[in-house]
Amino acid sequence: MPETTRRADRPTGSRYGNRPTMKDVAARAGVGLKTVSRVVNGEPGVTPDTERRVQEAIEALGFRRNDSARVLRKGRTASIGLILEDLADPFYGPLSRAVEEVARAHGALLINGSSAEDPEREQELALALCARRVDGLVVIPAGDDHRYLEPEIRAGVATVFVDRPAGRIDADVVLSDNYGGARDGVAHLIAHGHRRIGFIGDMPRIHTAAERLRGYRAAMEDAGISVAERWMSLGATDPERVRRAAEEMLAGPDPVTAVFAGNNRVTVTVVRVLAERARRVALVGFDDFELADLLQPGVTVVAQDSAALGRTAAERLFRQLDGTLVAPERIQLPTRLITRGSGELPPTD
Amino acid sequence: MPETTRRADRPTGSRYGNRPTMKDVAARAGVGLKTVSRVVNGEPGVTPDTERRVQEAIEALGFRRNDSARVLRKGRTASIGLILEDLADPFYGPLSRAVEEVARAHGALLINGSSAEDPEREQELALALCARRVDGLVVIPAGDDHRYLEPEIRAGVATVFVDRPAGRIDADVVLSDNYGGARDGVAHLIAHGHRRIGFIGDMPRIHTAAERLRGYRAAMEDAGISVAERWMSLGATDPERVRRAAEEMLAGPDPVTAVFAGNNRVTVTVVRVLAERARRVALVGFDDFELADLLQPGVTVVAQDSAALGRTAAERLFRQLDGTLVAPERIQLPTRLITRGSGELPPTD
Repeated sequence: MPETTRRADRPTGSRYGNRPTMKDVAARAGVGLKTVSRVVNGEPGVTPDTERRVQEAIEALGFRRNDSARVLRKGRTASIGLILEDLADPFYGPLSRAVEEVARAHGALLINGSSAEDPEREQELALALCARRVDGLVVIPAGDDHRYLEPEIRAGVATVFVDRPAGRIDADVVLSDNYGGARDGVAHLIAHGHRRIGFIGDMPRIHTAAERLRGYRAAMEDAGISVAERWMSLGATDPERVRRAAEEMLAGPDPVTAVFAGNNRVTVTVVRVLAERARRVALVGFDDFELADLLQPGVTVVAQDSAALGRTAAERLFRQLDGTLVAPERIQLPTRLITRGSGELPPTD
Repeated sequence: MPETTRRADRPTGSRYGNRPTMKDVAARAGVGLKTVSRVVNGEPGVTPDTERRVQEAIEALGFRRNDSARVLRKGRTASIGLILEDLADPFYGPLSRAVEEVARAHGALLINGSSAEDPEREQELALALCARRVDGLVVIPAGDDHRYLEPEIRAGVATVFVDRPAGRIDADVVLSDNYGGARDGVAHLIAHGHRRIGFIGDMPRIHTAAERLRGYRAAMEDAGISVAERWMSLGATDPERVRRAAEEMLAGPDPVTAVFAGNNRVTVTVVRVLAERARRVALVGFDDFELADLLQPGVTVVAQDSAALGRTAAERLFRQLDGTLVAPERIQLPTRLITRGSGELPPTD
């Protein structure tokens, strides 16, 4: 897209529109992005000749490492946007707060919005925040095609995806190990003697739900257990749907003896269903949640560090704004199994 | 402040700056605001002569009831801002979501930010959102002086305060009955035989904390119980402070036999402290919280309807934008005592 069209996208002109990027420097110097980054950050591994060429390109283009950050401090209040999926899901509380703390440490305001799991809404909100001149966006994506953000990214809006990957664009992504975490959680139930294990998850088009299902399948396959279709239920996480799914798995001649709940919204409903029953059914949930340890039995969970997700994403965003990042990366954070009782119950059948 | 200065506050000119208000119509017609409202909304109680005068003023000034709403639909995406106190407090989840649903029903985006209980941050955020051209603001205030919003309000930014009142300005406010709810909750403990009842609340400068303390004092006074200073502890709601406060009240020769927890952050910590002790201590908490019914004993709470707070505030905001509201009002929503076991335990001493 030519420069003029790009600028036309931003009605009142962009601070970033004319800012030379590391890519421009690399192109002019005829070197790779990593080399420019090394020179800019004073890292070793660059020959004196290459360094000279990079420095010349930097001077010729007027590239400045902290350009945007310095402009921010001079001009109006810096701000970054965060697009959440659901304002009422407690999982996003610590994540949002962590993003906000990093923003504040960089002198920037955080502005949030929620897509309510609607890709169109996500796009509308992301573009509305860009039109309102946020300097960067942390996105928990609802959609799987983010090419609509390309003009903004080219115009200098820093962008990091968190919790779920970006679709059809090359972008920084910070994820939990959803596959590994679910596999560990299900393997834990298998190690306690369970073979008929149910999986109740979110809608399969959601990356985290699909990855956790994949982890469930892998653990079952590792143990040589063939999975019955009726043990798996993916769909909306409203209590009615989850309750129905749990009750179906728990009924019939060969009921499941354990349930793996695909996220905290599912877990709290499954806890309710199990509390009503005499038969003890084991439970491991993905995501920790408040008071899980005070229930009886305590709920064993695969905990994500949602604050670390937010912090990592936000720090990466500000490194993009500083101009110190080179190529987009995919960062994966580990999960942690926390045993509290519900996941250690033996099968009763 | 003269019109010119007002307009200069908004660098690129305000859509609202020249819009005649109901106040202008009332002044020109020489009638009260309520009369104008009646005529505009086609309500009875206006003489034909008065109605004619109002209609003439409306025509002369070019006043249109749905002026702003119509402009919004024609121009850029409408948006409203919501300023929360803490992104990670689950109380605000349903409130935010309710505001968002009303915004969406009006074709507007919701943009959130958090003051983190810092009055300066609240002001910075509110003004930053106004500079980003939100059409209205729903504010959960951290500060107690909102005169900084007066130029924005005069320039047409709709403003509603929720959960806590506005300070030093006349504005729409939607509150829970904090005083009455706390008084009912404490009276409930007294009715179950308690006399030494502790109160652990948020910082006293916070309106809700002060009101709930007032409710506690009133219930105790109603029962002729004189309150010992050491039964009351107000301060930050971090777990360490609350734990220390609870442990102090529960120790000594005359420990409290019941605790009234001033909000959900306090309650969850008190639940933890009580779970570690052999002696059964009664507990009533202000705010309902997830899984309160599945704890043992279930936690008796004074529930606010946080979704209704958000919905009521947002609906009022859009009525301001429609031009159908007259004078600021203070709306108070009732609370509801939900008994689950912890508040019905008898005193053990």
